Amino acid sequence: MSDWYLAIQVVMMPRDTNPHGTIFGGVILSYIDQAGAIGGRREVARAGGALPYLATVAVNRVEFHRSVLVGDVVRFLTRLVRIGRTSITMQVRVEADRGDQTLHVTEAEVVYVGVDLNSPGRPPTPLLPDRPSPGAEDSPSQGKS
Amino acid sequence: MSDWYLAIQVVMMPRDTNPHGTIFGGVILSYIDQAGAIGGRREVARAGGALPYLATVAVNRVEFHRSVLVGDVVRFLTRLVRIGRTSITMQVRVEADRGDQTLHVTEAEVVYVGVDLNSPGRPPTPLLPDRPSPGAEDSPSQGKS
Amino acid sequence: MSDWYLAIQVVMMPRDTNPHGTIFGGVILSYIDQAGAIGGRREVARAGGALPYLATVAVNRVEFHRSVLVGDVVRFLTRLVRIGRTSITMQVRVEADRGDQTLHVTEAEVVYVGVDLNSPGRPPTPLLPDRPSPGAEDSPSQGKS
Amino acid sequence: MSDWYLAIQVVMMPRDTNPHGTIFGGVILSYIDQAGAIGGRREVARAGGALPYLATVAVNRVEFHRSVLVGDVVRFLTRLVRIGRTSITMQVRVEADRGDQTLHVTEAEVVYVGVDLNSPGRPPTPLLPDRPSPGAEDSPSQGKS
Amino acid sequence: MSDWYLAIQVVMMPRDTNPHGTIFGGVILSYIDQAGAIGGRREVARAGGALPYLATVAVNRVEFHRSVLVGDVVRFLTRLVRIGRTSITMQVRVEADRGDQTLHVTEAEVVYVGVDLNSPGRPPTPLLPDRPSPGAEDSPSQGKS
Amino acid sequence: MSDWYLAIQVVMMPRDTNPHGTIFGGVILSYIDQAGAIGGRREVARAGGALPYLATVAVNRVEFHRSVLVGDVVRFLTRLVRIGRTSITMQVRVEADRGDQTLHVTEAEVVYVGVDLNSPGRPPTPLLPDRPSPGAEDSPSQGKS
Repeated sequence: MSDWYLAIQVVMMPRDTNPHGTIFGGVILSYIDQAGAIGGRREVARAGGALPYLATVAVNRVEFHRSVLVGDVVRFLTRLVRIGRTSITMQVRVEADRGDQTLHVTEAEVVYVGVDLNSPGRPPTPLLPDRPSPGAEDSPSQGKS
Repeated sequence: MSDWYLAIQVVMMPRDTNPHGTIFGGVILSYIDQAGAIGGRREVARAGGALPYLATVAVNRVEFHRSVLVGDVVRFLTRLVRIGRTSITMQVRVEADRGDQTLHVTEAEVVYVGVDLNSPGRPPTPLLPDRPSPGAEDSPSQGKS
Repeated sequence: MSDWYLAIQVVMMPRDTNPHGTIFGGVILSYIDQAGAIGGRREVARAGGALPYLATVAVNRVEFHRSVLVGDVVRFLTRLVRIGRTSITMQVRVEADRGDQTLHVTEAEVVYVGVDLNSPGRPPTPLLPDRPSPGAEDSPSQGKS
Repeated sequence: MSDWYLAIQVVMMPRDTNPHGTIFGGVILSYIDQAGAIGGRREVARAGGALPYLATVAVNRVEFHRSVLVGDVVRFLTRLVRIGRTSITMQVRVEADRGDQTLHVTEAEVVYVGVDLNSPGRPPTPLLPDRPSPGAEDSPSQGKS
Repeated sequence: MSDWYLAIQVVMMPRDTNPHGTIFGGVILSYIDQAGAIGGRREVARAGGALPYLATVAVNRVEFHRSVLVGDVVRFLTRLVRIGRTSITMQVRVEADRGDQTLHVTEAEVVYVGVDLNSPGRPPTPLLPDRPSPGAEDSPSQGKS
Repeated sequence: MSDWYLAIQVVMMPRDTNPHGTIFGGVILSYIDQAGAIGGRREVARAGGALPYLATVAVNRVEFHRSVLVGDVVRFLTRLVRIGRTSITMQVRVEADRGDQTLHVTEAEVVYVGVDLNSPGRPPTPLLPDRPSPGAEDSPSQGKS
């Protein structure tokens, strides 16, 4: 089971608000996308792969449990869910420090694929050296359970 | 079955790029979040409710089919998936006009809840006048499955 | 007479405000500039030209009829005014959806010129295939009708 | 005849570019809008009025003579065109320092109206103390011609 | 001697660049300012004070050792230098993860003062409960030397 | 003694605020960094050098005397402190026009180095033609005292 990794930590500013005065969900989603990629690159390297370029292919699920407020220090923690031949799935947990409390505000799961930036069309590229056990892509993966 | 509604249309600029030079996924996710809320408010009104304030509670799924590029004109179309007592689920389809082609680049499903901005804690508030058929909130709904 | 084309639609956010708390005119002007170019490219293609690169050469006139507010869904509709050998003039009409009202907030006319991005100095380039009737550029033009 | 006043000076950054790689016209238009208001407030004070809150009501004309580039230091100079009972018209001249050259890149004329931020609906409010000569609003004005 | 605290971690994007194509120093300075305040609030709480509102009063020194690049994951670590009656001085160390290297890119020292947001003029307010040893404000402090 | 040069002038907008509602110090620091570089390039040219590319190497000191507010017109004035073989030190004085007052809000000193953008690693490059008097780099400099 992989540990939580602190991928991003930022403070929320007035420019990040939505018309209701709380933090715009798109700001949180943007950091989730970045955080999963930062954490994912690190997991590929820890698993023995070269540091990949990752492109987002899917967001499996995001749950917004609470509003985030201006002034909150927001933390995006990542954890490996599973790693396949060309794709990696990351869990992203979002916490907000508000006053002396830490609130669990959002939870997400994002899937990335390794891409070869130097080939036309930027095709998917294997994340790990050649001999992952067959079927690794499809198995629910040891990373998660 | 509800029609597609053009909720947002924008052109992608260099400031929207990620380090790979394509459009940052967080930019697309931000517009998806806004588009679903714009479309959702409209669907509530069409169903006979007062125009609600909507807060995002979940992203069920986002699939990024293709990269979006600087200069693309990107369209966020929305369609009602289901409407419950206090929540509404919207499908968001993202298309990019590039040269003379229209590409289907991303697909998403987002859930919003009506909120009462004037009460402390901003509790959920019913979206529709009182007598929706019982169980509407919980039924899987034809829109989705 | 050309129809209105929905070139841009966006929702206004707190980061778009001026010191008075309404939407900064520069934000509206920025979208007008983009909208006219999006609509203009489309008109050139409809008139039989290749999709051009357009650079803004003039804003003939902008009238701000009403303030735009945070939360408004703002629509930039475009219509061909006239098309010449290397330039195209577009009308941009700006509407805001606020609650259940649609307000006509701003009106503009913008002129673009086709540019050749691949030649040094980016000289103007003809928008349409070779045989526009002589004088089309200078006539006040029904270019339109 | 009023002198040129340096209302805004900024340096252009990569985030200000359009898809062609030059500075986005909307960025220039945004600074023009701000510059005219800054210069206009000063002209009202010089003419004996209290410092007003100004809202943009019209852009009479903008001419883009040349592209602005990343790294250019851009100057927005303003000059009074005319001042009426509740409105003021400002000329804005835009210059770019590029290497050891100064280029005249854009020219604009913008009209503002004094607004009373403390009254509902923010009605227009006189810019000058009570006794401007009758008809000042409509005369072509000494400021300009 | 206080430990390093990870106050901010972010990834650098194309919109953060200067005209030379590296990351704009102002972006780094902005995060340094935020990081010192985040770390400073925490240090005040650890020293027994209530969580304060901190306003920046001085940057003692910033040294830029290396350029930061697009795609770098940049970390702002903070450490207490000294805490006085109403002010707190924080050291901020900036590291960039680039490929498999971690580079020490910038070093800074920033001073904040506690402010009372609810009093007119927002006067300085004591950071710690009443009895710090006399002269704590002026002594060079154990934190630093 | 060198004169003050108006390097940057801008108006502060709501998007520039911190969670306390005043202008974020990072915004001021960003403009200081740009202003010193703009003023520094000019000083190098006035001293007989070619217009250099300048990279920030240090902020010697910044003092924030007063908060800056939304709507303030803020001016960044620069003055040469000293110029050495490859580095130049600039003083930056920040003033805010608020109502009919001009407030001295911030003071800074920033050091830049000339860089050769066309060589790998972008090494420092001499700012002035070859024969500066020996020791010019280390002397406190005529520019300042």
